[in-house]
Amino acid sequence: MAAIEILKGGTVTTPQGYSAGATYAGIKKKVENVLDLGIIYSREPCVAAGVFTTNQIKSASVVLNQKNLQNKGNISAVVVNSGCANSSTGEQGLQDAFEMAAVTAKALGIEPEEVVVASTGVIGVRLPMKSISEGMNQIVLSPDGGHEFTRSIMTTDTVLKEIGVVVKTKDTSFTIAGVAKGSGMIHPNLATMLVFITTDAAVEQEFLNSALRSAADNSFNMISVDGDTSPSDTVLVLANGIAANKPINANSIIAPFFQEALDKVCVYLAKAIAADGEGATKLIEVSVKGAKNLQAARQAARTIVSSNLVKAAVYGNDPNWGRVTAALGRSGVELSESKLDVVMAGIPVLRSGCPLPFERQTAVKALQQKEVKILVDLNLGEAEATAWGCDLTEQYVVINSAYTT
Amino acid sequence: MAAIEILKGGTVTTPQGYSAGATYAGIKKKVENVLDLGIIYSREPCVAAGVFTTNQIKSASVVLNQKNLQNKGNISAVVVNSGCANSSTGEQGLQDAFEMAAVTAKALGIEPEEVVVASTGVIGVRLPMKSISEGMNQIVLSPDGGHEFTRSIMTTDTVLKEIGVVVKTKDTSFTIAGVAKGSGMIHPNLATMLVFITTDAAVEQEFLNSALRSAADNSFNMISVDGDTSPSDTVLVLANGIAANKPINANSIIAPFFQEALDKVCVYLAKAIAADGEGATKLIEVSVKGAKNLQAARQAARTIVSSNLVKAAVYGNDPNWGRVTAALGRSGVELSESKLDVVMAGIPVLRSGCPLPFERQTAVKALQQKEVKILVDLNLGEAEATAWGCDLTEQYVVINSAYTT
Repeated sequence: MAAIEILKGGTVTTPQGYSAGATYAGIKKKVENVLDLGIIYSREPCVAAGVFTTNQIKSASVVLNQKNLQNKGNISAVVVNSGCANSSTGEQGLQDAFEMAAVTAKALGIEPEEVVVASTGVIGVRLPMKSISEGMNQIVLSPDGGHEFTRSIMTTDTVLKEIGVVVKTKDTSFTIAGVAKGSGMIHPNLATMLVFITTDAAVEQEFLNSALRSAADNSFNMISVDGDTSPSDTVLVLANGIAANKPINANSIIAPFFQEALDKVCVYLAKAIAADGEGATKLIEVSVKGAKNLQAARQAARTIVSSNLVKAAVYGNDPNWGRVTAALGRSGVELSESKLDVVMAGIPVLRSGCPLPFERQTAVKALQQKEVKILVDLNLGEAEATAWGCDLTEQYVVINSAYTT
Repeated sequence: MAAIEILKGGTVTTPQGYSAGATYAGIKKKVENVLDLGIIYSREPCVAAGVFTTNQIKSASVVLNQKNLQNKGNISAVVVNSGCANSSTGEQGLQDAFEMAAVTAKALGIEPEEVVVASTGVIGVRLPMKSISEGMNQIVLSPDGGHEFTRSIMTTDTVLKEIGVVVKTKDTSFTIAGVAKGSGMIHPNLATMLVFITTDAAVEQEFLNSALRSAADNSFNMISVDGDTSPSDTVLVLANGIAANKPINANSIIAPFFQEALDKVCVYLAKAIAADGEGATKLIEVSVKGAKNLQAARQAARTIVSSNLVKAAVYGNDPNWGRVTAALGRSGVELSESKLDVVMAGIPVLRSGCPLPFERQTAVKALQQKEVKILVDLNLGEAEATAWGCDLTEQYVVINSAYTT
């Protein structure tokens, strides 16, 4: 048995042995209190696992990290800049990403291969290497620096996205914490998602890989702001082992608790990213059950939550369930119309494929919440999945179009 | 050799033997000059072919038409209402669709199986059968009734979408004409597309099927307004043979000219639908060449033209080509980043995967057109395809959300 508790104010420096810091290096346009370069450092080298964008166009940092994590896996630091994505920058971009790692390594007295690099911002523009080198020397690491680091990776995010959980078992206790930046940039190019998770648990490499993959599949792979994936999307977990538990592998008694805690961190951050999507006023949660298999349930939930028409209906408090079934119908998932049940914001609107009468005003009122849930039952099998997204608003269009003119 | 000419003012009643008419039957909310019930009639029975929505949720009329076209194929009339989609209405909906055909057949003195039915509008609501029966008796068919018919199927369409072409060969001449309703409804539920094409050419059934399929694949299947397909999407072609040419089959000398003329009609209507998408201010044309195969070229072009971020960038006159390559990168199509060329609104922005310098103001100005072209060369093969869409504007969100509150 284990207890999993959420820690108030938890951030990446909450687990033992981590420090962090950030500065304004002059990569982004200067506004009050803005930060654009940050570091997370672990005093012990970490077992590390990452999941990266599936976009075939990958930013230079993603290419570098995938190589570093494959080659070694002992990571001591993460360096992140906002304001420039270092993507579509060719060979030069790869050299710049490597140099950013090297400069960080030098400042910390470690090897460049121990540094994970992430960049978010405009595509097709070189990293300002001089600003990055100079900024590096201004960064002061501290065991309370997690919040500052989180601020340095934010762009048009309107809230800090941070969480920490502690896992206590009979024999041991360890902490997992994570921070994220979501969707939106001052110079918007892409809704890049960056997530950094730290833990003081000792975890074996293979299990860390599979635990992160599993957690990401149920969280970050189930959110959509606008259907576009970024060349920079990165989710990284570092485990420095300072909690001195017996290293966790798939057969450990505490493996399920580690997984549960990691899932909790990932789902929390994923929902926070969706809720804070560009221009969003509401979080939309779509749960699909009764699917023939997990893949179908996920596909159906993702398609519905990504539909512009569903998103606009939720924004307008419109119980327009026809848009839900229409999105489902084009999802490619097997369905039988006469078995379909739909519940919108707590109101049953379709049962066995037939419309149910409901009071429109009651439904409109039920939709006036910050979190709108849509439940679909395919009644064909046992699999279920949940996806998260946000409503589509005029402000989304403004953010993504109006800034240049 | 054949000459294909566009006919000024062409519409579905331009080919010989067709008449049409429309009325206000009280299905839609009454506003000045509104029509909501229309008929096309051919004095000779037609060979008919249709392509229908791929959505697994199909409206009652689509289910009925697919059966009628399969069973017989001799069609004499089309009846269409706007204001109610008769979708997600169960068994009752099928009966209502059949009755709508029967009422029309009775008024015209033909069999119900000779009538194609289409409905567009709100989902999950029964057809007002009494209004339809009564409206039917008010419709006056006329050889000039094409424009009136087109108005009766419009919803939030802001322009009439009609075209006629004449094909003249040494031995014969025939006419093909088409009308469409696009994306948007007064009670918007779905961006339903309805297209009706008439010709006085004599065409064999099998060739008409394949010619329509081919034309639709290059036109209606290459447009996107918001990524959502409707349960009602229908493209229908009627050929009444009054031109008395030798019936066209795949081996006819004039088959390629028939195909070319049909393609022209379909591409014209498809572009007109895209340009008149809900809230749109611009037509976007994305051409992808150098793909390994046609399927890849189509997939890439469609993914780019459907990207919310690309659509918002075009709206904002933003030469933000990173969004084009990012959409391409997630399209699932094989690519090699170092071979990629991109031209936006006539401005080369990426060559062999490397950003090209360009004057921002020149590019912003180039994007200020009603038609914005984006060219992508994958440089991997010989296949190419073009897709059409529209920009994403605040007005799209307003149309699809704000009307209920």
